[in-house]
Amino acid sequence: MVPGFLTRAVAVLLGREGRSLHLKAAGGATVVLVLVMLGGAWAVTAAEEGAHGANLTSYPQGLWWSIETATTVGYGDFYPVTLWGRVVGAVVMVVGITTYGMVTAALATWFVGREERRRDHTHRLREETRALHERFDRIERMLAGERGGAD
Amino acid sequence: MVPGFLTRAVAVLLGREGRSLHLKAAGGATVVLVLVMLGGAWAVTAAEEGAHGANLTSYPQGLWWSIETATTVGYGDFYPVTLWGRVVGAVVMVVGITTYGMVTAALATWFVGREERRRDHTHRLREETRALHERFDRIERMLAGERGGAD
Amino acid sequence: MVPGFLTRAVAVLLGREGRSLHLKAAGGATVVLVLVMLGGAWAVTAAEEGAHGANLTSYPQGLWWSIETATTVGYGDFYPVTLWGRVVGAVVMVVGITTYGMVTAALATWFVGREERRRDHTHRLREETRALHERFDRIERMLAGERGGAD
Amino acid sequence: MVPGFLTRAVAVLLGREGRSLHLKAAGGATVVLVLVMLGGAWAVTAAEEGAHGANLTSYPQGLWWSIETATTVGYGDFYPVTLWGRVVGAVVMVVGITTYGMVTAALATWFVGREERRRDHTHRLREETRALHERFDRIERMLAGERGGAD
Repeated sequence: MVPGFLTRAVAVLLGREGRSLHLKAAGGATVVLVLVMLGGAWAVTAAEEGAHGANLTSYPQGLWWSIETATTVGYGDFYPVTLWGRVVGAVVMVVGITTYGMVTAALATWFVGREERRRDHTHRLREETRALHERFDRIERMLAGERGGAD
Repeated sequence: MVPGFLTRAVAVLLGREGRSLHLKAAGGATVVLVLVMLGGAWAVTAAEEGAHGANLTSYPQGLWWSIETATTVGYGDFYPVTLWGRVVGAVVMVVGITTYGMVTAALATWFVGREERRRDHTHRLREETRALHERFDRIERMLAGERGGAD
Repeated sequence: MVPGFLTRAVAVLLGREGRSLHLKAAGGATVVLVLVMLGGAWAVTAAEEGAHGANLTSYPQGLWWSIETATTVGYGDFYPVTLWGRVVGAVVMVVGITTYGMVTAALATWFVGREERRRDHTHRLREETRALHERFDRIERMLAGERGGAD
Repeated sequence: MVPGFLTRAVAVLLGREGRSLHLKAAGGATVVLVLVMLGGAWAVTAAEEGAHGANLTSYPQGLWWSIETATTVGYGDFYPVTLWGRVVGAVVMVVGITTYGMVTAALATWFVGREERRRDHTHRLREETRALHERFDRIERMLAGERGGAD
């Protein structure tokens, strides 16, 4: 649910969908991820503050935790132990994974577009059509010559 | 094996493959993932219950564990120690990874489709064909004029 | 290096590249991954056996470790401590990640193919060509009629 | 930000973008990843040296840490505890993830290209055009025959 929602949210937020959606979606998701990581670091330390067995007690620790969580590394040196800390963690994880998915998909779209331009279907179409136009030219000359011959 | 099976299962379950398969597959896989996470949280706590060294002892813990497992973060604060708990864990991992793969692939398909529409091969084809139709019009007029001139 | 090598190895091993390479590559990679996980579980326990601080001491533990390693979850309940155990670990990680990449890429190719068939460029091409053939029919009738009229 | 930057850096560094960008990007990213892992292993042990609670104290340990970090496994047997060690860790994580994204995207592009060649739009285009050329031949023969008949 959440990944789909994020996708749509990014598409709607960016608004102007006219040009290269994939670059804007990947860029937008990266910006959202950085904001979620910065905000999540603050939110998780606020949620964990004073909890029994909490190990996320300062903003620098929270930032390191949000980096290793968003990248899904998860060493286990820091992790939330409260309900709200874990909700923040789940959001950071999902936003992180969705962003990597978007960057991967945008790269694929970029590569596919480059390959298409190399194979150049449009160029082929133009070439085939030019050959047909030459046939038309020839028939028109034949018709014109015939008419001339009929005079 | 399992990812391929899941893929086919989702395709079969959704049944109506007529329209934008990628959106339905990504949406369906997300739904399956949420169900597997909710069910896995229950199944793992049931499997681990009373086992020596078990640390997954309540449903809320199980849910947090299934979230960090499906996202492949794996802090190591909770993990199954019994055979059946680990089987549940393997299922949650594989379903999670396959879902992210599907969401990424669906995003790529969406982006590629947008790019194709922008480059608009069909528009080019139409334009080239219109030029050919104009040549036909001209030849028909020449033929009609010639016949008229022959009267 | 290794992902590229694996890709080529799978392509070469499968040999008959004539039909839907992506399905065969994803399927082949999944088979390779399962074999690497089964073999890696054995190899890692053999490498770790008797080492100081080793925690991977039985095949079932090794299998659970290779599952959580290939899926990149890595709880940290089991991990290799010897050189060769870590070499095995690196292989399991890289094969796992490459397999998920292949499955994701195969899903994207499948989805893109479905979308293409829906938009149906070929159908458009056929329709446009049929219109041109109708113009030819008409010109031929005009020419035949003219000749008939000339008799 | 960083993934986008890396993407552009690889594209610029490789310079000659004329042929199969996706293979060069995936290959280049893999080379960069290996260099970052080798360099990161050295950098993290240098940063961690003598720090309170540091567990990354030798190059072999650093190398194992950079492998499990770049693959996002993160067992938690080794992790940086200093600011600069964590900066190195963040770089290794992001480069690792971006590389897998590139390899996945390059695989998708490769698969899509193979599928396109199988469906062979260009072949269809050629066939349709040949049929039109045959119609031209026939009309030219009709025109030539008519002219001959008029003599």
